[in-house]
Amino acid sequence: MNKFIQYRREFHHFPEQGWDEVRTTSRIYEILTDMGYDCLMGLQVCDEDTIDDMMRTPEQRQANMERAIAQGAKADIVEMTHGFPGVIAVFDTGKPGPVTAFRFDIDCLPGNEPHKEGFRPFDEGYISCNEGCVHACGHDAHTAMGLGIAEALLAKKDEFSGKVKLIFQPSEEVYHGAESIVAKGHLDDVDNMIIMHVALSAEGKPLTSHTICCGCKDFLSDRQIDVTFHGRGAHPCGAAQEGRDAMLAACSAVLNLRTIANHELGLTRVNVGVIRGGTVVNTIPDECFISLECRGECPEISEYVERRVFEILDGAAAMHGCTYDYYKWGLYPASKSDDAMMEIIQRAALKVPWFEKVYFEGSIGGSDDAAAMMNAVKEHGGIATYLGIGTDTTQPVHNDEFDLDEECIPAAIDMCMLALEEIHGA
Amino acid sequence: MNKFIQYRREFHHFPEQGWDEVRTTSRIYEILTDMGYDCLMGLQVCDEDTIDDMMRTPEQRQANMERAIAQGAKADIVEMTHGFPGVIAVFDTGKPGPVTAFRFDIDCLPGNEPHKEGFRPFDEGYISCNEGCVHACGHDAHTAMGLGIAEALLAKKDEFSGKVKLIFQPSEEVYHGAESIVAKGHLDDVDNMIIMHVALSAEGKPLTSHTICCGCKDFLSDRQIDVTFHGRGAHPCGAAQEGRDAMLAACSAVLNLRTIANHELGLTRVNVGVIRGGTVVNTIPDECFISLECRGECPEISEYVERRVFEILDGAAAMHGCTYDYYKWGLYPASKSDDAMMEIIQRAALKVPWFEKVYFEGSIGGSDDAAAMMNAVKEHGGIATYLGIGTDTTQPVHNDEFDLDEECIPAAIDMCMLALEEIHGA
Amino acid sequence: MNKFIQYRREFHHFPEQGWDEVRTTSRIYEILTDMGYDCLMGLQVCDEDTIDDMMRTPEQRQANMERAIAQGAKADIVEMTHGFPGVIAVFDTGKPGPVTAFRFDIDCLPGNEPHKEGFRPFDEGYISCNEGCVHACGHDAHTAMGLGIAEALLAKKDEFSGKVKLIFQPSEEVYHGAESIVAKGHLDDVDNMIIMHVALSAEGKPLTSHTICCGCKDFLSDRQIDVTFHGRGAHPCGAAQEGRDAMLAACSAVLNLRTIANHELGLTRVNVGVIRGGTVVNTIPDECFISLECRGECPEISEYVERRVFEILDGAAAMHGCTYDYYKWGLYPASKSDDAMMEIIQRAALKVPWFEKVYFEGSIGGSDDAAAMMNAVKEHGGIATYLGIGTDTTQPVHNDEFDLDEECIPAAIDMCMLALEEIHGA
Amino acid sequence: MNKFIQYRREFHHFPEQGWDEVRTTSRIYEILTDMGYDCLMGLQVCDEDTIDDMMRTPEQRQANMERAIAQGAKADIVEMTHGFPGVIAVFDTGKPGPVTAFRFDIDCLPGNEPHKEGFRPFDEGYISCNEGCVHACGHDAHTAMGLGIAEALLAKKDEFSGKVKLIFQPSEEVYHGAESIVAKGHLDDVDNMIIMHVALSAEGKPLTSHTICCGCKDFLSDRQIDVTFHGRGAHPCGAAQEGRDAMLAACSAVLNLRTIANHELGLTRVNVGVIRGGTVVNTIPDECFISLECRGECPEISEYVERRVFEILDGAAAMHGCTYDYYKWGLYPASKSDDAMMEIIQRAALKVPWFEKVYFEGSIGGSDDAAAMMNAVKEHGGIATYLGIGTDTTQPVHNDEFDLDEECIPAAIDMCMLALEEIHGA
Repeated sequence: MNKFIQYRREFHHFPEQGWDEVRTTSRIYEILTDMGYDCLMGLQVCDEDTIDDMMRTPEQRQANMERAIAQGAKADIVEMTHGFPGVIAVFDTGKPGPVTAFRFDIDCLPGNEPHKEGFRPFDEGYISCNEGCVHACGHDAHTAMGLGIAEALLAKKDEFSGKVKLIFQPSEEVYHGAESIVAKGHLDDVDNMIIMHVALSAEGKPLTSHTICCGCKDFLSDRQIDVTFHGRGAHPCGAAQEGRDAMLAACSAVLNLRTIANHELGLTRVNVGVIRGGTVVNTIPDECFISLECRGECPEISEYVERRVFEILDGAAAMHGCTYDYYKWGLYPASKSDDAMMEIIQRAALKVPWFEKVYFEGSIGGSDDAAAMMNAVKEHGGIATYLGIGTDTTQPVHNDEFDLDEECIPAAIDMCMLALEEIHGA
Repeated sequence: MNKFIQYRREFHHFPEQGWDEVRTTSRIYEILTDMGYDCLMGLQVCDEDTIDDMMRTPEQRQANMERAIAQGAKADIVEMTHGFPGVIAVFDTGKPGPVTAFRFDIDCLPGNEPHKEGFRPFDEGYISCNEGCVHACGHDAHTAMGLGIAEALLAKKDEFSGKVKLIFQPSEEVYHGAESIVAKGHLDDVDNMIIMHVALSAEGKPLTSHTICCGCKDFLSDRQIDVTFHGRGAHPCGAAQEGRDAMLAACSAVLNLRTIANHELGLTRVNVGVIRGGTVVNTIPDECFISLECRGECPEISEYVERRVFEILDGAAAMHGCTYDYYKWGLYPASKSDDAMMEIIQRAALKVPWFEKVYFEGSIGGSDDAAAMMNAVKEHGGIATYLGIGTDTTQPVHNDEFDLDEECIPAAIDMCMLALEEIHGA
Repeated sequence: MNKFIQYRREFHHFPEQGWDEVRTTSRIYEILTDMGYDCLMGLQVCDEDTIDDMMRTPEQRQANMERAIAQGAKADIVEMTHGFPGVIAVFDTGKPGPVTAFRFDIDCLPGNEPHKEGFRPFDEGYISCNEGCVHACGHDAHTAMGLGIAEALLAKKDEFSGKVKLIFQPSEEVYHGAESIVAKGHLDDVDNMIIMHVALSAEGKPLTSHTICCGCKDFLSDRQIDVTFHGRGAHPCGAAQEGRDAMLAACSAVLNLRTIANHELGLTRVNVGVIRGGTVVNTIPDECFISLECRGECPEISEYVERRVFEILDGAAAMHGCTYDYYKWGLYPASKSDDAMMEIIQRAALKVPWFEKVYFEGSIGGSDDAAAMMNAVKEHGGIATYLGIGTDTTQPVHNDEFDLDEECIPAAIDMCMLALEEIHGA
Repeated sequence: MNKFIQYRREFHHFPEQGWDEVRTTSRIYEILTDMGYDCLMGLQVCDEDTIDDMMRTPEQRQANMERAIAQGAKADIVEMTHGFPGVIAVFDTGKPGPVTAFRFDIDCLPGNEPHKEGFRPFDEGYISCNEGCVHACGHDAHTAMGLGIAEALLAKKDEFSGKVKLIFQPSEEVYHGAESIVAKGHLDDVDNMIIMHVALSAEGKPLTSHTICCGCKDFLSDRQIDVTFHGRGAHPCGAAQEGRDAMLAACSAVLNLRTIANHELGLTRVNVGVIRGGTVVNTIPDECFISLECRGECPEISEYVERRVFEILDGAAAMHGCTYDYYKWGLYPASKSDDAMMEIIQRAALKVPWFEKVYFEGSIGGSDDAAAMMNAVKEHGGIATYLGIGTDTTQPVHNDEFDLDEECIPAAIDMCMLALEEIHGA
């Protein structure tokens, strides 16, 4: 089996959620240093202040490090992480020339894969061994692509000029991953930025195997908000009138949040992803937590939908005599791929036989914090693209039974090398 | 400080939820055997088949036993429990005569007390030390009352005839506690049954300190149902149309369950006490769990409300293309206190100076599985009452900040001894 | 056919809603004056200021008068009503003695009877001929009973002493009917008050034919509130974000109003009976009206439920950026039948063979503005009862297909005459 | 004042809803025949079978005709309509050449304008005099534009070749207007089709005065469905358990319909525009009607959203033990303006000084049954555009306080004449 497909399966077997990716980080570091790369790791990659919100406690970091070692990471490398994830390897030709950066996200999603026959990760033994963790968004494949590009670059040392930065980013699914790398200044000298994601869509259809799209322009901004409704517990028969039912407030909010009218300017989206409330069946719930996100295609929509969200939260709390507090996570920005960068990808893709259909523009249909990196590159005149690698999947992304056609991995590596040839070749 | 108030504070400090009460059980056993009682414990008290649903795994039982020891229970007694809670002590005069049983429930509720000044359990150091556990329904006081009656009985050995059974019952708040003791046959020879609960109400007002009601007749039947809605996870922007939002189904069910019309025959109640759904903010939730209970004043209502509950669950699932499965917990029955038993309590209470106001009938305003014991006693011609000991409280029961006026404990002990005098005295 | 059953069918055929009962009033007046009674009518019966809210415009009164004549009322009597309903006839023996009053309500409900075979009013030709009007609460039978008592009294002129007032009250279902008669002073000299209603319940079962209950004590207070939500209309695609959807606010209010927890002190009820919103399918509704009522068994509950209603209205409006205004209709009071009056009824009922089962107390399971009359009588030391005449029905009251067993009419008349015998006989 | 602005005000003053436009039809006919046109009218314009659903009864048609005459239409013309609206005038040069059609919609919306100072229709006396009717979508201006083009064409008789059809279409807001004209064959020979609408948007901003967009491509399909939920009426206290609350079913449907997830392929819209339920506050509503529409940008979405709508209706009914029936109105299709036609408009608009900003493409942000005409023209090889005439407005369309800048009327006429010059000129 292709070595990078094997890597993908290893990462799939040991999935780690955002800011917990200590084993993944250590293994990437180990593989890259074995190839001969000097790597940055942990707080050399991510800005400590930026990730303050998500900062693991020393105990959690210690636990992650212990687990990483138990799951096969080398103890000396794990020690060097101090429990902070993220790796950057720089391929430096030593010759003047352009700087190109890649972003590979490495975190997984919460969830559990099904242990059932016919599901390949189960049948072939690479199913997740971490309870509650699953690579259901293809980041295992992205990571493998990054390692493949790193290896392929080694043969180009003399041929290429300039530098290629391979950024293995923690926490795309959660918060502050890309932002913390931007804050650290790693994008300041980048001229060309390439971000790959499997399983996007084009012309309204999923990108299946043997297809590719060269860039997306439909990033939505994304604001995530955690809300806790506070009521008053009481026995539901005796003294029910003294209770303030925080669950009714939350459920009313959930239903009404989804009634927010679409803005005429474009896509308007609200999702409530998590609800947790109450402790015991025979007590009126005094607390209920929801985690929601709102997205928009432009700043006017983001502002509109956020205003409506708070009107609904206010009203839902008032209806049931409750209060609420909230925490607003950082705002993912919107962005657009640049035609110039997309054209480079298009020329490269057309030379890779695996890609039978090359769409110029595709659709992300959502958000990715890579937009923060793209915007950082654009700010000083660079160009960027966020492109889609087609792959057959068992289920849509973010579904626990997601698996993909691994043949996309070597094809993506080949395509990237051809694009780098155009940028860095003689 | 009164010894039994001290015991109450000890139990308050080490609260244990239903079927976890190994420390509480061991301490009750220790105190009663020190007094000279022979006691039944664990599976001698509770029927193993009946508690099958709630059965702790061997690992959980082991963990409870270890915790009990770490929290001051004697290791040899803990071993004897095999991890199963419950104690019965029988005061046997050796002389023929009536059999009277008391039920004292010993479990706590889920929740967390506030660590703040001005809250007496915090100020005086008896606040819960078990994360997620709190004696917010007064069962700590009930247990202390039972120990007090046990001690007071010792002086009556010669004076009394017949037997007095002191039943320390696990798991009143959860399931099958009373039922499992009935199933074991402990109520088969009981002529008189007395169950005390703090903080009921009478004439529409809470029973505050210096008041008592001699019985309640308004038990509601209670059926608890756990429901899990199953949908389909999907990314909320890309491919949202593929998702089936289990949280929307659950929230719609929660709101609509509360719209069930009151039956003309009497009290009709539905409470949803717990909701848990979704795993991550940017995925359409594929699963959502709710735990609900429905109560009624008579079998017609119970049947009506259960039928309506399932109509609503069916409809809510159908609306969002989801399915659901459920687990029905055992049905708590309705019951009524007997006038003859209430009159005995009334005569006793009028002799205790602490009780300045004696109501004949009060209100439970809910359910208690003690009803199963009462019905068992009534079935073979015995009489029973479920009476309310007034006490000032900081908050209603089932509120995390519940605390009570401990002076009700010695008063309740005195009152019970006077009632026993009438039943068992010469 | 019994003459009073024929009258019932006539009133059934020409139903009139509250404050529109001009034909009914005129016919009652005609029948009673033909018997020889002097009658009060219209504003002699009802206080003009009290009914101000409901006051028909001169045009509406005129239309009601024209319809009354077209439907067989005598023009000269109709003229005398000036379009205001209500009749009082006084049977005065001329001898000193007690004053007894009866209340017979005469209005119908909105609705439409089914024109289908097997439905007796259709088959036998007395189905409603007034579009949108239906006697679905038995007031046609009550009116017939009143006429029957009037006739039976004529034979008692010499035998009886004191006075009997026969009050034919408009607008029980809507507003201010009883209140306006109390305000006019007609209850000021009343010692005994008897109010009959068909189809109540006792011991949790409907009162079927051959049963009676002698009084009810479970009147609920009742507050009715009309609410109009105001939003902002907009096209639902273009500029949807500019809209404020008053229908969403109203629907959210309707659902959440029904989630109000039952007060521990007793029955707590909320019903939303009417909703009207929006004008056209392709516009976001800028206005939505709801009409609701909230009931409670005692003033604490009334106050609690009204506070909760306004919290929910506030919150529902806030959620959707809407405002609302409201109109509070008068509060129906609670009341209780007096044992002394119920005992008189009991003695009378036991003598009427048609009543095979005599319940002492029954249940109204709701509200009736007769409570205002009962309270007025009690205030100066009189006694009152609100009793239930059993009758088999095709459907529960307030259902469009309601019909009843008319044999209850002569039985009720007989029973009342026996009660009057006890009060006014020698 | 410009004559066509005066006409606009006249139509504004006498608004008529879909299929009621008898006065409007008669006046258009009168004005056009006075100019010298031969016109088709009523069932010569609209296909009788197609409008069967909406067909007025003979009584309604008669009433519309009487009202038209009372409001100044000529009796002899009104007679000729037989109560059916719609006018077509054909400008026929008698010379061979292309056929161009215009569509002007003539119906108003339900609603009521505010009678308040500062609102120009009130201040200047052209406020609606028809209760419940308001020109809140600019069709009064469209009609005036049609008359202006008709007049301007008269001067071009010799200059132009081919034909110009001026179609004054009834019932754009309601149903079957365009469809019934297509069914009659009036579009069969049309080569070029121009449809104008005021107040669309471009680049995310409303088209204000002095702007124009030359076409739209974002038509949504539109399906309208009327739904009636059937429950069971009952008294809300006594026997509430016998009731089946159709209003709760409807309100739950309304809320949940708006939670339908947006399809990834494009715009997905649901609006509930009307709700009507219940008859009286103290009865559980046995019936509740809602009128909803669902739209999508392509057939996959239309199908998806319609499937979801019925899932929600099914579930909402099931939750409350209700049933429902429904009526599906015809489906409005999607369509797209043709570049070739838009380019003609662009060239013309650039020559009209009033249009300071000419957008090539704008946005309809919704649906218009004109799409059926456009598709009919395209089917036999013609080209069509649906263009937006910018105008300052007081409120968005479909708001009762909508008024517009009438200067757009002469500007639109001028622009159309220039476009016709290009098509039909020598």
